[in-house]
Amino acid sequence: MRETEVYDVLIIGTGPAGLQAGIHAARKKIRVILFGHPQASALYRAHLENLCFVSGKRDGQELLSIGLEQVRHFGATVVEEDVVKTAQEGDLFMVETESGRKFYGLSLIFATGVSRKGLGLKKEKELIGRGVSYCVDCDANFYRGARVAVVGNESAAAFGALTLLKYASKVYLIAKDLKVAPELEKELRESQVELLLGRWIKEIRGAERLEGVILDDGHPLELDGLFIELGAKGAMELAATLGVMLDPEKFTYIVTNKRQETNIDGIYAAGDICGPPLQVAKALGEGCIAGLEASSYAIKKRKALFNS
Amino acid sequence: MRETEVYDVLIIGTGPAGLQAGIHAARKKIRVILFGHPQASALYRAHLENLCFVSGKRDGQELLSIGLEQVRHFGATVVEEDVVKTAQEGDLFMVETESGRKFYGLSLIFATGVSRKGLGLKKEKELIGRGVSYCVDCDANFYRGARVAVVGNESAAAFGALTLLKYASKVYLIAKDLKVAPELEKELRESQVELLLGRWIKEIRGAERLEGVILDDGHPLELDGLFIELGAKGAMELAATLGVMLDPEKFTYIVTNKRQETNIDGIYAAGDICGPPLQVAKALGEGCIAGLEASSYAIKKRKALFNS
Ligand SMILES: Cc1cc2nc3c(=O)[nH]c(=O)nc-3n(C[C@H](O)[C@H](O)[C@H](O)COP(=O)(O)OP(=O)(O)OC[C@H]3O[C@@H](n4cnc5c(N)ncnc54)[C@H](O)[C@@H]3O)c2cc1C
Ligand SMILES: Cc1cc2nc3c(=O)[nH]c(=O)nc-3n(C[C@H](O)[C@H](O)[C@H](O)COP(=O)(O)OP(=O)(O)OC[C@H]3O[C@@H](n4cnc5c(N)ncnc54)[C@H](O)[C@@H]3O)c2cc1C
Repeated sequence: MRETEVYDVLIIGTGPAGLQAGIHAARKKIRVILFGHPQASALYRAHLENLCFVSGKRDGQELLSIGLEQVRHFGATVVEEDVVKTAQEGDLFMVETESGRKFYGLSLIFATGVSRKGLGLKKEKELIGRGVSYCVDCDANFYRGARVAVVGNESAAAFGALTLLKYASKVYLIAKDLKVAPELEKELRESQVELLLGRWIKEIRGAERLEGVILDDGHPLELDGLFIELGAKGAMELAATLGVMLDPEKFTYIVTNKRQETNIDGIYAAGDICGPPLQVAKALGEGCIAGLEASSYAIKKRKALFNS
Repeated sequence: MRETEVYDVLIIGTGPAGLQAGIHAARKKIRVILFGHPQASALYRAHLENLCFVSGKRDGQELLSIGLEQVRHFGATVVEEDVVKTAQEGDLFMVETESGRKFYGLSLIFATGVSRKGLGLKKEKELIGRGVSYCVDCDANFYRGARVAVVGNESAAAFGALTLLKYASKVYLIAKDLKVAPELEKELRESQVELLLGRWIKEIRGAERLEGVILDDGHPLELDGLFIELGAKGAMELAATLGVMLDPEKFTYIVTNKRQETNIDGIYAAGDICGPPLQVAKALGEGCIAGLEASSYAIKKRKALFNS
């Protein structure tokens, strides 16, 4: 392999974390490449209003195209393809994309986000941002005085319902099989949240916007907002192949230290893939650190390998 | 003390970290208050071009006023005064401002930044952003093809000079008493950096922009850029009074874990005060986490204390 064919920093992901890592790495004047479809970023269908310095309610798709322009402006290459395989070959990391191309690099950053688990119902994806949400912390503010439901069995759903009480006029919690700590269940029962236990959703209704849901017992529910809080699951296969350590409890996040280092030398991670809070501001912070750390690593490594 | 007089989250600092913490806390619909002069933020005199989603070369002062508007919009109070005293009184944290007003809160976030050590020379502050910089990583890009010098004795200065070689046409390192590892000194000596060892700066020259410096031996040096890299020192007294742990090496940073918790229950820290990289993206990420964590803490604490 010739030195000039080797990238300094490979970044898997073109969401906020990957883009910010790319900006900080590219400004070191080294060879940086990003992989991934920006349309698959969690931000793509979102509206953002809680990032400092970015005011108003802003369209995620528009923000991502600004970020892509920035990272290219500073000299990084963007390959809008998924990575389908990763490997460590000697001193180099290899990634293979969906079109079969292979790229080699001295350091590697995972910024792959999480794929939020959905209900798998018709209209669910279509109505995201128009009544359907996967994040109470992000969107509660848009549902002042509204009728909303949270669906989910775990603590994320329970806490979500309690938070929504501060915004919405009516809050339901739909849970087939509620599995939360007794204290939390007590708090729920004493709150204004209307519990629909043993129930689930079989149909989502609405055309331009969400209008309501049909429960599995046939009962209809009129709603302005539906929060799907089934917990977030990372697509971790690529990381696991390289021996990257996942969180020991649920295997859904990559474990990093404050320098965004994983357990494998030269491999870093940033953003949602590192666990909650699943927020853009956090993704940018971790991306910045990962970009700088991976750059330093690559610069040292290039010197050691190629004596340049 | 009546319950309604107690804030949920006290935030010392109105730079990027404090503002982002304020935004995430205020969106929980709890009582949030920020202290500090935005003009004292490191961002105030800076130009920012490496934050994802904020494109172009943007004026720090303008960005800070956007952030202040955002945090107020979500319901936080901003007191543009310095905090001169902190104390823990029973279950509450107390802060006293320069006008003698006292405020009480259930949780406290330090987002006080660092005060960058300067040379203490005439014109130094005046020419910041107009040829004088305290941050190679931030500003190197503005000095393409230029003549620049770095002043400083420690590794930050040495690495800064090496980085600048990739941008500038001429790089000096001015060091009265260079104290770096032998390997780094060797690298410097073999590089294109012109070392002015045993030298320091006695005068900064320039009217509208930096024109050059006079060394302590009377020798003049024409320059487009001067990077002052003396290391960053935090104003840590307020934290130390509360027993907050500082980094054991230099006592210049507050030690936090990944949840931005300090060693004291209910006290968090975010941004430059937590150590490098001193970057806006990192300050936002840590601010987001600190804001969310302090909110959760305060909500639990309020329930326990006031049963509400
Ligand atoms: C509806 C909605 C609303 C939201 N609202 C807000 C909000 O108001 N405020 C807020 O702060 N956050 C909000 N969020 C969360 C926010 O979008 C995420 O925290 C953020 O996008 C995380 O950034 P990331 O870069 O870690 O991951 P993502 O943005 O999800 O990006 C992941 C990237 O990895 C790529 N990728 C994944 N697998 C591969 C692979 N195998 N090969 C190549 N590329 C791959 C994807 O294509 C994508 O580019 C919202 C999320 C949703 C879904
Ligand atoms: C010239 C220059 C150029 C820079 N360029 C860039 C760049 O291009 N990109 C980048 O990412 N970063 C850049 N930075 C760094 C960036 O500005 C900082 O990382 C960022 O501002 C840190 O945010 P912070 O909130 O932690 O601290 P700060 O922004 O410094 O804010 C600290 C706040 O704490 C307040 N405070 C301090 N003490 C007290 C007290 N006792 N009571 C009350 N309030 C108090 C201050 O008033 C201020 O509001 C630059 C810095 C400088 C100086």
